[in-house]
Amino acid sequence: MVKKLEMLPATDVDLSSVKYEHEVVKAPHLTGFVFRLFVRILELPLIGPAIITHLKKDNKVDQLLRNTVIPEGPMFKPEYPPQETEPGVVVLDEDGSPAGRVESALKCLPQYDPSKSWEDSSLPFRYWKIRDYAYAYRTGKVTPSMVAERIISVIEENCRLKPPAPLLISFDAADVRKQAAASTQRFEEGNPVSILDGIFIAIKDDIDLYPHPSNGASTWMHEVRTVKKDAVCVSKLRSCGVIFVGKANMHEFGMGTTGNNPNYGTTRNPHAPDRYTGGSSSGPAAIVASGICSAALGTDGGGSVRIPSSLCGVVGLKSNYGRTNMEGSLCDGGTVEIIGPIASSVEDIMLVYAAMLGSSPENRISLRPPPPCLPALSFIDDSNILGSLRIGKYTAWFNDVHSTEVSDKCEDALNLLTKAHGCEITEIVIPELQEMRTAHVVSIGSECLSSMNAHCEDGKGVKSTYDTRTSMGLFRSFTAADYIAAQRIRRRIMHYHMEIFKKVDIIVTPTTGITAPKIPPSALQSGETDMQTTAYLMRFIIAGNLLGLPAISVPVGYDRSGLPIGLQLIGRPWAEATILRIASAVEKLCCESKKRPLQYYDILRAN
Amino acid sequence: MVKKLEMLPATDVDLSSVKYEHEVVKAPHLTGFVFRLFVRILELPLIGPAIITHLKKDNKVDQLLRNTVIPEGPMFKPEYPPQETEPGVVVLDEDGSPAGRVESALKCLPQYDPSKSWEDSSLPFRYWKIRDYAYAYRTGKVTPSMVAERIISVIEENCRLKPPAPLLISFDAADVRKQAAASTQRFEEGNPVSILDGIFIAIKDDIDLYPHPSNGASTWMHEVRTVKKDAVCVSKLRSCGVIFVGKANMHEFGMGTTGNNPNYGTTRNPHAPDRYTGGSSSGPAAIVASGICSAALGTDGGGSVRIPSSLCGVVGLKSNYGRTNMEGSLCDGGTVEIIGPIASSVEDIMLVYAAMLGSSPENRISLRPPPPCLPALSFIDDSNILGSLRIGKYTAWFNDVHSTEVSDKCEDALNLLTKAHGCEITEIVIPELQEMRTAHVVSIGSECLSSMNAHCEDGKGVKSTYDTRTSMGLFRSFTAADYIAAQRIRRRIMHYHMEIFKKVDIIVTPTTGITAPKIPPSALQSGETDMQTTAYLMRFIIAGNLLGLPAISVPVGYDRSGLPIGLQLIGRPWAEATILRIASAVEKLCCESKKRPLQYYDILRAN
Repeated sequence: MVKKLEMLPATDVDLSSVKYEHEVVKAPHLTGFVFRLFVRILELPLIGPAIITHLKKDNKVDQLLRNTVIPEGPMFKPEYPPQETEPGVVVLDEDGSPAGRVESALKCLPQYDPSKSWEDSSLPFRYWKIRDYAYAYRTGKVTPSMVAERIISVIEENCRLKPPAPLLISFDAADVRKQAAASTQRFEEGNPVSILDGIFIAIKDDIDLYPHPSNGASTWMHEVRTVKKDAVCVSKLRSCGVIFVGKANMHEFGMGTTGNNPNYGTTRNPHAPDRYTGGSSSGPAAIVASGICSAALGTDGGGSVRIPSSLCGVVGLKSNYGRTNMEGSLCDGGTVEIIGPIASSVEDIMLVYAAMLGSSPENRISLRPPPPCLPALSFIDDSNILGSLRIGKYTAWFNDVHSTEVSDKCEDALNLLTKAHGCEITEIVIPELQEMRTAHVVSIGSECLSSMNAHCEDGKGVKSTYDTRTSMGLFRSFTAADYIAAQRIRRRIMHYHMEIFKKVDIIVTPTTGITAPKIPPSALQSGETDMQTTAYLMRFIIAGNLLGLPAISVPVGYDRSGLPIGLQLIGRPWAEATILRIASAVEKLCCESKKRPLQYYDILRAN
Repeated sequence: MVKKLEMLPATDVDLSSVKYEHEVVKAPHLTGFVFRLFVRILELPLIGPAIITHLKKDNKVDQLLRNTVIPEGPMFKPEYPPQETEPGVVVLDEDGSPAGRVESALKCLPQYDPSKSWEDSSLPFRYWKIRDYAYAYRTGKVTPSMVAERIISVIEENCRLKPPAPLLISFDAADVRKQAAASTQRFEEGNPVSILDGIFIAIKDDIDLYPHPSNGASTWMHEVRTVKKDAVCVSKLRSCGVIFVGKANMHEFGMGTTGNNPNYGTTRNPHAPDRYTGGSSSGPAAIVASGICSAALGTDGGGSVRIPSSLCGVVGLKSNYGRTNMEGSLCDGGTVEIIGPIASSVEDIMLVYAAMLGSSPENRISLRPPPPCLPALSFIDDSNILGSLRIGKYTAWFNDVHSTEVSDKCEDALNLLTKAHGCEITEIVIPELQEMRTAHVVSIGSECLSSMNAHCEDGKGVKSTYDTRTSMGLFRSFTAADYIAAQRIRRRIMHYHMEIFKKVDIIVTPTTGITAPKIPPSALQSGETDMQTTAYLMRFIIAGNLLGLPAISVPVGYDRSGLPIGLQLIGRPWAEATILRIASAVEKLCCESKKRPLQYYDILRAN
């Protein structure tokens, strides 16, 4: 007999009495032989489940899911009350051509000034933007084929690293050359398809890019799932003239936040090669941060776009749940995951995002999303709108980081923002953050297991990394009633956030509670389990996934070791335009401090 | 290692090659001591789960949920493509007053003619309708208080039965008298609230009726859940002047389809006291069938309104998922359950349904239901509309019943319908009926367990009936990934049905594959498990729940033993008006054969 707890209805919870609870994670940090042994024991009948029960007990998981009366009904997918239209936006035509949307996005951007980048080499470091490439292509300074050769040589060099630390895990130089030649020819004929024509983009290995296999960085997924065409998002980019360099490395199946990958090697952080990129979109973030690609597509089910973007010093957008079509990705039936762009600047995010967005027919029915919008940064008085925005900050949470350098730098960015535009910072309280995390891991884990179960039982399970096998062991322990309890918690957390969004327009947090962690050498060969680090990496991530809210990570500076720090902006439902507007303002205010990564390739100038 | 199966995408399934598969259920029929022993073994650690795994293996449950690749993404709640408006309907104002909606419903009905009922006692047996009571009250033939006394005396007599076989399990004569006196006074003052004023209605024990406890016919739910006010549906009826007789008996927690209840006694079928009423809304169906109440509210998560309505010879409406507000019912967060009315005629169903309907604020957001409608039977040329309706029939399924008497009688009703109105019967095929059943049991079971788990673990579990404990044992075995697999199947089954509804307007089946089963005397004290009978009772039920489609059971005759047979009409999404229109036509065509139940009380004439 287990004594039950009873939650008050969320509507009755007194927010003024909520105390911030520091996240306590109880789990061993294991690498190497001990980790491999641990996983093998975990997979034993009876003993394995007993260990998992014990670990869950320490973290009060079952107490919450099985022994607590949660008065709310389950919310299986994000459900939002009606939302007001965002101010100062351009509405994009979801059903129109991707190139047409990119054209609209272009009109949202301030006038392009080549003198500020291309022509003045005395400026401090900055990344080349898509419009720099476009300018270079259109002025004949360089062709897509020339750029392709430089990228191919960098990638081939990257492939020769020992131990392996690949950016791409499926790469076909001939295919890249062929795409580049076609683009070059379009420029020669004066017919580029869009501003994205000839722009090099990498695709995370869990999104279909024909004719590459989609392995989710495992060794076996291609054996059970054949890629027959591009994912919907990819085909939209392709129709804009994008050149795809290949499939970017990742944490196997997205089941981890460091980017560790014993199958192909662990991608290194371009700012510190002995450190993780963060994950799971390790390759996408690193290939952008190292200057090789203008952008990459990642997936974000638990921070997998935002975390590596933050750790690698680039911008990562987690669009609203349902805003992007997941057809052709390994996880196309989940309730927390989206496909999102990673780029070095907010304007590049806007261009790529405009091309790739669009809800699936299923989500049109079940979510009825409002039309997608972008901030009209060029032709509407942006500072007036910025000044009217109210920023929500939960200070106790904001400051719950590994080193105060992280929160201080984020605080600095906020101060710059309020000083420059007069936006108001409002102190907020978010209850049940730990419950939110539990609800999230049950949701994503169960959904992931559901899509892999039959393959794993059919003999593929043991071909996965020890890291994946540990996660799967946990996920297998969740019951159907656990899953539904998690959805009840989703409704509570949604309530709290919708109440907060009555008072503020965005919620700000550090993206991660820690800068890029060191890679233990012992973790290279067979991975590791380190829930403490995971907790720091995921501390601020979950509302974007469990509630499907749009969120963006934008770089705001570096810690003393020169490691990037990201600020996260979480928006109201569907309000991508608002977070892009603020991200753009933050970027402008913090760009002075941009550092050139240690591993950086000046692809456009090729020096 | 378990070899995996792969399902074709539902869109690629060739319907012309689908063969009907007779449902095979492998499980023992247990009662008495053996059943009690079985449950105790089932609750042992290790052995219990092993038995359940074995039973599930026999029925290929895990093979479907764990070892099959299901290409569709999960559909957690019914999601429908846009629907056309039904022809010849009156739109009801969901936000208006219940009494206003009842007024609209009244206008949909043909002119009331007292000579056809009240004044001509030579007519064959028929139930008193709400308008008969209304006429009697308004012409001063009788008062609500007089009727209340008759009902109280019948109920008190029912309470004295040995062994107990109660219609109501919470009854307060003083409370009924008080309500009746208030109604009587309104009539004396010439101010009845609506046509429902003074109409006697019973409420199933899993729906809150203040000040009664809501036990779901268990012995313990009132200890953990206090009723503080009426359920939303009940309060709407109360605002129309309805008099509530009390809480009707049911299968404990709705977890069974016979109505067996060892806690309070098993309600008997008014047509055959040695037989089950069907369930789980046993009391509601029986109290209507025996003439004591004009209507009752039941809940239907797996046929619980339709099955007992069919077995007791009355009409039961399962409204579309989300059409009725579940707030204040024991199952208010499920994805398959609704509250629906039971009455002796379609017109009474329409009047009660008009009063009680209305989506919850949550479902307004997530389902965005079209406005509720009723068929305008009085002032639109109904026969033209009826003639244009296309009726879908899957003959192999239709005929898969315990005795051909059931399918023959349903066939007769269809023949009368086509002859009278010229509607067209179209042969259809529905694939994966067994998969649909599995998806349903996983869904309803997990949702039910989720709402009871904390209480059960806290010591209440062993206070439940053996029947409930058996079900809970099964439900506990479902994993989170099983639940999600079930939702993937829901999307497939939805696809098939939406394809069918491109060709037909309704699907017809027998409501149940068997007439009222005998109650084994050995099952009275501690229940029974009889999956074969359950399978017959639920054979045609599931689409209404898993897909949330509206469905109605209407009596069409009797078998040789005089036991009622019901025809089920399953409508397109939200198309309650269409199934009500056809049900009304069927009722008119089959009413000649109406039999007076053995246990019938002529409350209005009181003879």
